[in-house]
Amino acid sequence: MHRYRSHNCAALRKSDVGNTVRLSGWVHRVRDHGGVLFIDLRDHYGVTQVVADPDSAAFSLAETVRGEWVIRIDGEVKARSDDTVNANLPTGEVEVYAREIEVLSAAKELPLPVFGEPEYPEDVRLKYRFLDLRRETLHRNIVRRTEIIAAMRELMNGVGFTEYSTPILTASSPEGARDFLVPSRIHPGNFYALPQAPQQYKQLIMASGFDRYFQIAPCFRDEDPRADRLPGEFYQLDLEMSFVEQEDILTAMEPVIRSVFEKFADGKPVTQEFPRIPYAEAIRKYGSDKPDLRNPIEMQAVTEHFAGSGFKVFANMIANDAKVEVWAIPAKTGGSRAFCDRMNSWAQGEGQPGLGYIFWREEEGAVAGAGPLAKNIGPERTDAIRGQLGLEAGDACFFVAGVPEKFVGFAGDARTRVGEELELIDKERFDLCWIVDFPFYEWNDEENRLDFSHNPFSMPQGGLEALESQDPKSILAYQYDIVCNGFEIGSGGIRNHVPELMVKAFGLVGFDAAVVEEQFGGLYRAFQYGVPPHGGMAAGIDRIVMLLLGAKNLREVTMFPMNQQAQDLLMGAPGEADAAQLRELNLRVIPVVKDD
Amino acid sequence: MHRYRSHNCAALRKSDVGNTVRLSGWVHRVRDHGGVLFIDLRDHYGVTQVVADPDSAAFSLAETVRGEWVIRIDGEVKARSDDTVNANLPTGEVEVYAREIEVLSAAKELPLPVFGEPEYPEDVRLKYRFLDLRRETLHRNIVRRTEIIAAMRELMNGVGFTEYSTPILTASSPEGARDFLVPSRIHPGNFYALPQAPQQYKQLIMASGFDRYFQIAPCFRDEDPRADRLPGEFYQLDLEMSFVEQEDILTAMEPVIRSVFEKFADGKPVTQEFPRIPYAEAIRKYGSDKPDLRNPIEMQAVTEHFAGSGFKVFANMIANDAKVEVWAIPAKTGGSRAFCDRMNSWAQGEGQPGLGYIFWREEEGAVAGAGPLAKNIGPERTDAIRGQLGLEAGDACFFVAGVPEKFVGFAGDARTRVGEELELIDKERFDLCWIVDFPFYEWNDEENRLDFSHNPFSMPQGGLEALESQDPKSILAYQYDIVCNGFEIGSGGIRNHVPELMVKAFGLVGFDAAVVEEQFGGLYRAFQYGVPPHGGMAAGIDRIVMLLLGAKNLREVTMFPMNQQAQDLLMGAPGEADAAQLRELNLRVIPVVKDD
Repeated sequence: MHRYRSHNCAALRKSDVGNTVRLSGWVHRVRDHGGVLFIDLRDHYGVTQVVADPDSAAFSLAETVRGEWVIRIDGEVKARSDDTVNANLPTGEVEVYAREIEVLSAAKELPLPVFGEPEYPEDVRLKYRFLDLRRETLHRNIVRRTEIIAAMRELMNGVGFTEYSTPILTASSPEGARDFLVPSRIHPGNFYALPQAPQQYKQLIMASGFDRYFQIAPCFRDEDPRADRLPGEFYQLDLEMSFVEQEDILTAMEPVIRSVFEKFADGKPVTQEFPRIPYAEAIRKYGSDKPDLRNPIEMQAVTEHFAGSGFKVFANMIANDAKVEVWAIPAKTGGSRAFCDRMNSWAQGEGQPGLGYIFWREEEGAVAGAGPLAKNIGPERTDAIRGQLGLEAGDACFFVAGVPEKFVGFAGDARTRVGEELELIDKERFDLCWIVDFPFYEWNDEENRLDFSHNPFSMPQGGLEALESQDPKSILAYQYDIVCNGFEIGSGGIRNHVPELMVKAFGLVGFDAAVVEEQFGGLYRAFQYGVPPHGGMAAGIDRIVMLLLGAKNLREVTMFPMNQQAQDLLMGAPGEADAAQLRELNLRVIPVVKDD
Repeated sequence: MHRYRSHNCAALRKSDVGNTVRLSGWVHRVRDHGGVLFIDLRDHYGVTQVVADPDSAAFSLAETVRGEWVIRIDGEVKARSDDTVNANLPTGEVEVYAREIEVLSAAKELPLPVFGEPEYPEDVRLKYRFLDLRRETLHRNIVRRTEIIAAMRELMNGVGFTEYSTPILTASSPEGARDFLVPSRIHPGNFYALPQAPQQYKQLIMASGFDRYFQIAPCFRDEDPRADRLPGEFYQLDLEMSFVEQEDILTAMEPVIRSVFEKFADGKPVTQEFPRIPYAEAIRKYGSDKPDLRNPIEMQAVTEHFAGSGFKVFANMIANDAKVEVWAIPAKTGGSRAFCDRMNSWAQGEGQPGLGYIFWREEEGAVAGAGPLAKNIGPERTDAIRGQLGLEAGDACFFVAGVPEKFVGFAGDARTRVGEELELIDKERFDLCWIVDFPFYEWNDEENRLDFSHNPFSMPQGGLEALESQDPKSILAYQYDIVCNGFEIGSGGIRNHVPELMVKAFGLVGFDAAVVEEQFGGLYRAFQYGVPPHGGMAAGIDRIVMLLLGAKNLREVTMFPMNQQAQDLLMGAPGEADAAQLRELNLRVIPVVKDD
């Protein structure tokens, strides 16, 4: 018989009754039922009930074992009586009568209980991650994460993508976030950088004549702690294709992403055909470029109904500034003064002066608008608004007014709030969409200059002509996001592969050609030697796993995460380097002067 | 029709004749055949011949295109005449008559030719890696590498392993080589380290209750340039299993490795059952713990035949030191004075005093030994040696004498040299074996103290009792290598999971318990809380790919390698950090003082 096990702890069935077996695993819990000991023995695969009765030679040792000890047991498989069968356990029809027990590894008193998974402080869970990971929920999440990634790989291979790894020790790149640096010992004073994303490499792969690249890519950003992002490293499903237009990428990836969701959605419905929503439309309808489409509310402009109306606040704003609009947030089933007042108070809590509303009720067999705004603008306009929005008695509508770009954020939040409060959002669904036609540039108010909105590597729609003749802020990019349930889960674009177009695009934000050449040297050089039109995207694996598993925290879907202070409490990282290491790297640490 | 292509460049067949198609790709080469232009158009998938005749509207533009330009062509598929069919090309039965050509991206004059793949200096190839990667051999190698890794994944999944990623930003670990450090911005003066291997994490995964982990793991070592290792990063097929003994791991992995080799061996035979050779036996038979078993030579000790013989040099050595042995390197078909003298000269070139030999020839119908040694020891002993080694007329034998541990390296080299010179090595084969039973400790002559031979995490054979009672140098470890054609391609062990055994094992090399606790904190802590017996191994992916593809250099199987000075010439890494970055990291670079 094998030294440690003839079966794993999920294997035994009724057909094994009568056999002598050997199991090894962790003592999940021990119960004493009138002198007979029941040990739930657990391994990676499952749990089997072991019985040690006082007649057994194993009994005296069984009395000493405690939770999380690792033991081997030899014994006989017996059928459980009908009333003790555990239908929730694959091995629930049998139990093993222990004849011999061997302690393979005892455990000290546990700093963190495994059985029952009670709430426990985060720092203890991270320091003793090896215990935390034994807990059923986390253990299952981690296995599921692996399955999701394996499914991504299989699906990508299935549609003709090939996985290539790109270097992790590479050059600092000026895009986006802060790099992690790695000092070079051989070249004193020089540093490698960990890649924020394999952006330049994947474009170089296309320039190298490969096609349909993908990678489950580790990415590194030295960012300040944020609740929705783990410090340090994260994973992307990164991909790039040659000789494609935007629609090719959306068409290639939509079935992959849909399949991943369907496979792991646990039966919840998944969008079958992802709507392609232009950025400008998303902003107007949902107040966000990451709309949660499970929320059925769509905003509409109702400016005309307030222009010249008796509600002077709005009417004057409209009269004084052609850019002012009034947007309506229709609230089906929200037609009570109590609800509308609650929303108004919420808005004040958000720093707004308030949130105007109208609600409708049956009055003498007709639908009548109520509330101060209705009174001010009169029944005709009130009715016109109701007609435009398709509302009925029992519904309400909220209004935000001003220059849209200033209020969209709040309008989007209000839309979400209304949807949540009225329980209009079906939580048991995955609603996916593409957001397309992002603006190429945006105005950077702080620095009072033009800036790239998203990705400087994207292709501007309209090409060189647009860059030369259009108002830069009106230029759109071949740039798209994929959004699920209000979260951006991926982003991509058709790349700007034309050197003169790149120089022009950077020129408009104030960089000259030399800067482009210096900062994106490898890529810019490659573009001089025959480069195919190409594009791609990257999807956030951690975020997708979180959504699919319904996890609230990235640490619930990551095996060995750092804490929010960017520390690995299990391994004790980061730590001090010894003097010899620093000397080899030609580095000196500057002492931190602490204020008294 | 699609903007760029209706077919890729490997797709067209005779059945497409008459169709109008669109292709995009690189101009592989242009030939002018009496005014008609032939363009070989290349993409990731293959090559198609495009014809532009002077009647075509595309002709004048076709005249301008040059190698590595990216173009789109529209045209009609025509059958080639029988005498122009190219049987080496999947598309070789057809050609496309261009009607329209669009230049998608022109190329400047090439610093590195793609077509024909002439030899080119390494630094140019690396700086213009995007051109180098378009060359057929390298392109195919990289795709093949991906296929090999995909096969590894599939095989590992097939035998019940699950892939988990381990952190890349982690703690410095005192084992083995030099770490790459990553300064922490949030914790000034502290550093992360990039993992040399996920050794501690994979053991923690076992302690966390998972089973059968694997990973295609990026590993990082800051080593000085070596011809057989790329600087910086490399990949391992890393794995670990719980509740296993050594034989379980060998049995699980042998079919995986055999299948990978068989799948990519291009028909070359692969060892069906890997011999398990104890380390001590490998050293005695092959003079190496990485024996090339394609070389049929097995050494044997022939000390007794020289003891007290007329060859005084050996006889005296044997008489004066009980540790002295004489080893024979039999050389089938090497029986000529010319060959033996050539080997002798080679040995002198290696810094040896010479290489004694006997060779045998037919003399008057009998087999007679010849050469100075044969003369000195006489026909009886000469014949006894021949008998022991099973040699015949036409064969030779070389001898090395001394204390074996001092001469084994040279003896192994001589065995290789003889095998190569006599062409005894079948190059068209993959011979695999396991080397087992490595010594646990070795004597460190430089520091005059005991040291771990391989891996301090390994389990000593005989456990605590062996550590307490045996001569440390005689203790073996549950530690094994896998060797192919003379290269170590993997290494592993059963781990020492017993805290007191770990403390004792480290104690013998002079570390006390506090050091173990401090340096292997996470792992040592985990071992206190119920840890399963476990073990595993790691196989070097780059090396396996190199062997399978017959590549001479790791840069031939790596997409974006650094050069031997640890520089990425394409991306320009490492580079200087700017002052702001260093300030954020609380670091100062110490100026390097150069000698005049």
